[in-house]
Parts: sequence; structure tokens; C-alpha cells
Amino acid sequence: MRKVFQAELHQIGEGLVEISALVGVAIEKSTAAFASVDLQGAEEVIAADARIDFLQNDLDERAIDVLALQGPVASDLRMIVGALRMSASLERMGDLARHISQLTRLRFPNPVVPQSLTDTFAELARLDILIAAKVAELLDSRDLELVTDILAAKGAINKIHKTVFSAMAAPDWAETAATTVDVTLASRYFERFGDHGVSVARKVSYLVTGEWQPEDFLAG
Amino acid sequence: MRKVFQAELHQIGEGLVEISALVGVAIEKSTAAFASVDLQGAEEVIAADARIDFLQNDLDERAIDVLALQGPVASDLRMIVGALRMSASLERMGDLARHISQLTRLRFPNPVVPQSLTDTFAELARLDILIAAKVAELLDSRDLELVTDILAAKGAINKIHKTVFSAMAAPDWAETAATTVDVTLASRYFERFGDHGVSVARKVSYLVTGEWQPEDFLAG
Repeated sequence: MRKVFQAELHQIGEGLVEISALVGVAIEKSTAAFASVDLQGAEEVIAADARIDFLQNDLDERAIDVLALQGPVASDLRMIVGALRMSASLERMGDLARHISQLTRLRFPNPVVPQSLTDTFAELARLDILIAAKVAELLDSRDLELVTDILAAKGAINKIHKTVFSAMAAPDWAETAATTVDVTLASRYFERFGDHGVSVARKVSYLVTGEWQPEDFLAG
Repeated sequence: MRKVFQAELHQIGEGLVEISALVGVAIEKSTAAFASVDLQGAEEVIAADARIDFLQNDLDERAIDVLALQGPVASDLRMIVGALRMSASLERMGDLARHISQLTRLRFPNPVVPQSLTDTFAELARLDILIAAKVAELLDSRDLELVTDILAAKGAINKIHKTVFSAMAAPDWAETAATTVDVTLASRYFERFGDHGVSVARKVSYLVTGEWQPEDFLAG
């Protein structure tokens, strides 16, 4: 019984790793399509998101079955409930990668952001891709040093996110209102993606150490 | 044992009703402060959000304890896992009410949205308040007719949300970029608030009927 249970727990862990890998692919393709104004790439990200949603539902069903059939206690139980939370965050990251591609599709053949912000969004993309990769690695290895990297990347995103808003508020911002709307949404999508990555990292950290990382862990 | 368990399940249900009531107060006060440019009111909403976060954590801990100590099966188990999901949605609604008040505070003593959109945002506020009230009632009564009202209100929000974006893309939109950014964020916060309300409604509906409402239930 215990052996079956351990195998099922392991499968749930594997499921999270699998979803996080797909999220990594999604954000890489989505930000590449965003940067290169690639309609085909954007469409692929949008279509592929259904697979992430399916895997999340599937993982959640399996987790609930394990809860029902095995009646796990203490740390195993927290791990399963944590998996339900993490799968929700990963699913949301997939949604945000899709939202970025939907902006690319909406504005095609024009780029979503003006040239003055191309480098800024390339840096946001690099950081989101890094967060997705580190989250996938963290779910696989449970190496908590990765949490520090993820928090540092999110700190950098927060700073850039603010500079984007400052750029739009500056007197020399001469873009149309439609572009301002798009930049606002895009910057928020990139920022939220990283934020959900941080949620997953904090949850893994909690499950490994038993100590909750305070929100202001990010302040530094 | 069974009696204790039923009492604990009932308490979890009561906890959700309590949180949803606070979310209702938060969105009412937040949208009132937003409309009347009331810094004091906005500060109160921002300060009060910590209570919602606390109650969510508390409810989650109790739900996990019930899972650990009682090892519930089948429908009870789904109800508890559903409660964990609903508490997350309610907590997020509280965050969004807070975000709206943070915009009010940021722009004080100026209003966040231009006069041309005052009525539009008043209508979004009315619909969000309605959704919060119906969600609280639904959690208490499980009367699924309320789900229909919630979905209808969200459908109305979606339409208005689109008209806000159309207004900003129109040639006669003469607001500053900073205002365009604020309107974009505000409209999204109002829309997301309603969306999380729909998530709770769909979850209650699922727990009562055992049938998942498809996403496109909203299409009508």
C-alpha cells in the first residue's frame, strides 16, 4: 500500500515537472513570437495552451484520487494540497503566455510594443524564461538555491515593470492610446507570469523546509 | 466522529461565507472611494485586505486539518478541495478590490478615470458589487439560480470592458498616456474581480450538481 502511495506521489511530482516544462516552452515561443511579430508562432502558443489546461485537470483529478483512496497524513497531505496550488499557478502561467500571444495576434503585422521598448521587453522575456526554467528545475530537484535565483529574477522584473510605466508617463511618450493600452497589458502579463513563478517557488520552499517564506522576502 | 466531521465541514462553509461577506464590503467601499475620490475610504480598503488574507490562511489550515484527521471520502473530499480553490478565488477578489483602491490613492486628489468614463465605471462597479453579493448568497444558500445571475452579470462586464478599450482606441480619445494606463488597469481589475466570482460560482455549481459548467456557458 505504502509503495503504491509513494509511486502515486512521485507521479504527481512528475506531472508538475511536465506541466512546468510545457509552460517553459510556451513562454519561450510566446516571447519569441512577440519580439519577431510572428503570427504563426503566436497561434501555436494559443493552440498549445489547451494541453496545459488538460494536464492540470488531469493532475488535480489524480491528486484528489490519492487523497480519497490513500488518506495520506501530515507532510504527504501538505505535499498533495501544495501540488494542487502549484498546478493552478502553472496553469495561470500558461494562460499568461497565451495572453501575450493573443496581443501579438491582435496587432499583427505591427509589433505590440514600440521600438523604444523593444530592449526592455526582451529583458522581461529573458527573465520570464529564466523563471520558468528555474521553476521546472526546482520542481525536479528541490534544490532551494534555485528559489533565490527566481526571487532575484522577479525583483528585476518588478523594477523593469516600473520603468515601463514611467516611460509611458514621461512627457516624451508620443505613442497612440492603443499602443499605451497594449504596453500596459503586456507589461502586466510579463510581470504576472513571474509572480506566479514565485508562488510556485515559495510553495516548494515551504514543502521542503516547513517554513513559509514571507512576502517581503522579495523586498531585497 | 461523523458528527464532529459534519460540524467541521459546516465551519469551513461558514468560513467561506464570512470571507465572501468581507470581499463584498471591500468591493463596495473600494468602488465608492474610486468614484468619489475618497482617499480615506481607499486606505481603509487597503488596510482591511490583510484580514481577508488571514481568514483565507486560517480556513485553508482548517481544511487541511480536516483532510488529515478525518480522511474524508468522495463528495466530502471534493467539497473540501473545492473550498481550498474557492478561498483562493475570494482572496484574489480581495486583492483586486485593494488594487482598485491603490489606484485611487495613487491618483488622489484626481480621479483615476476621466469624466467621460465615470458612468461606465459606475456600471462596472455595480456589476462587481452584485457579483460579490450573489456569490456570498450562493455560498450560503447553494441556490443555483444565483449562478445564472452571476454569469449574466459577468457577460455584461465583458461587454463594457470591451467598450472601454474601444473608447481608448477611438480617434477622439484625448487623455494623457498616464490616464490611459490607469483606465486600462482599472478596467482589467474590475473585469478580473467578476471573473473570480464566476470561478467560485462554477465551483459551487459543480459541487452541488456534480457537473462541470463548461467555460462557454458564459457565451450566451
